[in-house]
Amino acid sequence: MDKARRDMLKMVASVAGGVALTSMVGNALFARKVLSKTEEAGKVPELPWPYKKLDPVAVAERAYAAYWKGACCYGAFEGIVGELRQQVGFPYTVFPSELFIFGEGGVAATSNLCGALNGAAAAIFLLTGGLEGEKREKAFKIIQELFQFYEQEPLPNYRPKNPKYEIKPSVSKSSLCHVSVSRWCKATGFKAFSPQRKERCGWLTASVAKYTVELLNQYVEGTFKVVHPLPSEVQSCRSCHDKGGALENSRGMMDCNICHFTGKTKHP
Amino acid sequence: MDKARRDMLKMVASVAGGVALTSMVGNALFARKVLSKTEEAGKVPELPWPYKKLDPVAVAERAYAAYWKGACCYGAFEGIVGELRQQVGFPYTVFPSELFIFGEGGVAATSNLCGALNGAAAAIFLLTGGLEGEKREKAFKIIQELFQFYEQEPLPNYRPKNPKYEIKPSVSKSSLCHVSVSRWCKATGFKAFSPQRKERCGWLTASVAKYTVELLNQYVEGTFKVVHPLPSEVQSCRSCHDKGGALENSRGMMDCNICHFTGKTKHP
Repeated sequence: MDKARRDMLKMVASVAGGVALTSMVGNALFARKVLSKTEEAGKVPELPWPYKKLDPVAVAERAYAAYWKGACCYGAFEGIVGELRQQVGFPYTVFPSELFIFGEGGVAATSNLCGALNGAAAAIFLLTGGLEGEKREKAFKIIQELFQFYEQEPLPNYRPKNPKYEIKPSVSKSSLCHVSVSRWCKATGFKAFSPQRKERCGWLTASVAKYTVELLNQYVEGTFKVVHPLPSEVQSCRSCHDKGGALENSRGMMDCNICHFTGKTKHP
Repeated sequence: MDKARRDMLKMVASVAGGVALTSMVGNALFARKVLSKTEEAGKVPELPWPYKKLDPVAVAERAYAAYWKGACCYGAFEGIVGELRQQVGFPYTVFPSELFIFGEGGVAATSNLCGALNGAAAAIFLLTGGLEGEKREKAFKIIQELFQFYEQEPLPNYRPKNPKYEIKPSVSKSSLCHVSVSRWCKATGFKAFSPQRKERCGWLTASVAKYTVELLNQYVEGTFKVVHPLPSEVQSCRSCHDKGGALENSRGMMDCNICHFTGKTKHP
């Protein structure tokens, strides 16, 4: 082989190498494209995250199934956010919904705030809220409507398609797990740790998730309005005890009489 | 220029191109490396997320600052998770902490569960919990210890380095925002929407975040134990009314007497 031929062969080999490299560059550009997408993931968008109108029954069924996996708070949150993960994808794909198992049984079984309400409130804020005062207020109005619905309506009001038991509703008069469970036990005669009570909380999780999505759908349609205002008795108490009242020695939107003035105790 | 020389120049140009390509391949490999990291981001790890022992005072200060940005629930959560975002990075970089503004004022200003507790409980579960029963139980024990600390100790017990006012502590006897605020107002004479009460909730957020991190540090050291068990009166009530009791008509870990048997009402 003469020198020119050897040079030519070297050049061809070099070009062939270049082709391989070009292919790798193609991969690199593809990787960069995916990267720019995941760079979004690295930043996750500001609140509110994109909401797409959802089917309340699909959400209720998903919430009921999720309840049996991770209890009430996870159930309500995942019922809504899991549906968005499926229909919208990112950024819901990078959110660890399992976090909301923390709210089980009124947060870690302490029977404080009803877990379904806690999870649904978080979802409402994720989808309508934000740091700015105006965004907060809008989200808070929807959450407050949900809480009053929960206190005032006979619940659960959604029957899952494949229930384990038939469940009768009761009016909780409170957003607390402790009161909600106790009043349902009193109304139905079932024990607090019976399979029926657990089923009731599954139906309740589905009912709360369903109403939450109805409210969110109304919100994006521009038709949301408060239909469960604070009871007049609570407003009366607040007129002295809450913000701007003569005493202003408390704050609250829960039903006052469920704890105060029980039995023989009267207002002083 | 003779042919051999031209060929040589072509080859050099080709090699130079190869070098440029090699440089691009280097970028591609780097991109792939980042990509595999962000692919993780697309999946985010399962709970619990990685915890690194934190300085409780640094967390308290961050929580106090965050309180003035996004209120109590966000303050406690971001005090802890913001510190981890800075020290650990991913996956905390893809978590929208602003979500926890929802817990402000006992969730959307309804004065239900204290927001600092709600945010701290979520952080505890994110860092120690998981879907499996055993992981849940471990996380719930830490959360329950935090709740009892909050009910039983004079709080706030952390004074921020640059406070707006000096704040006296009180014992809340309850994990509810409504009761906690009302009892502090009664103990100090300040109004429920006074600047001093707002400052008090900032200190309280810092105090809750600080104790949470002390518990988390103990947990990773293997030295965590319950030091605030349920009061004996509550255990006595639960022995009849809670799981396995003769009545089993309720559930709860809150102080019973704060709502029941107030004034003249006695146990039947």
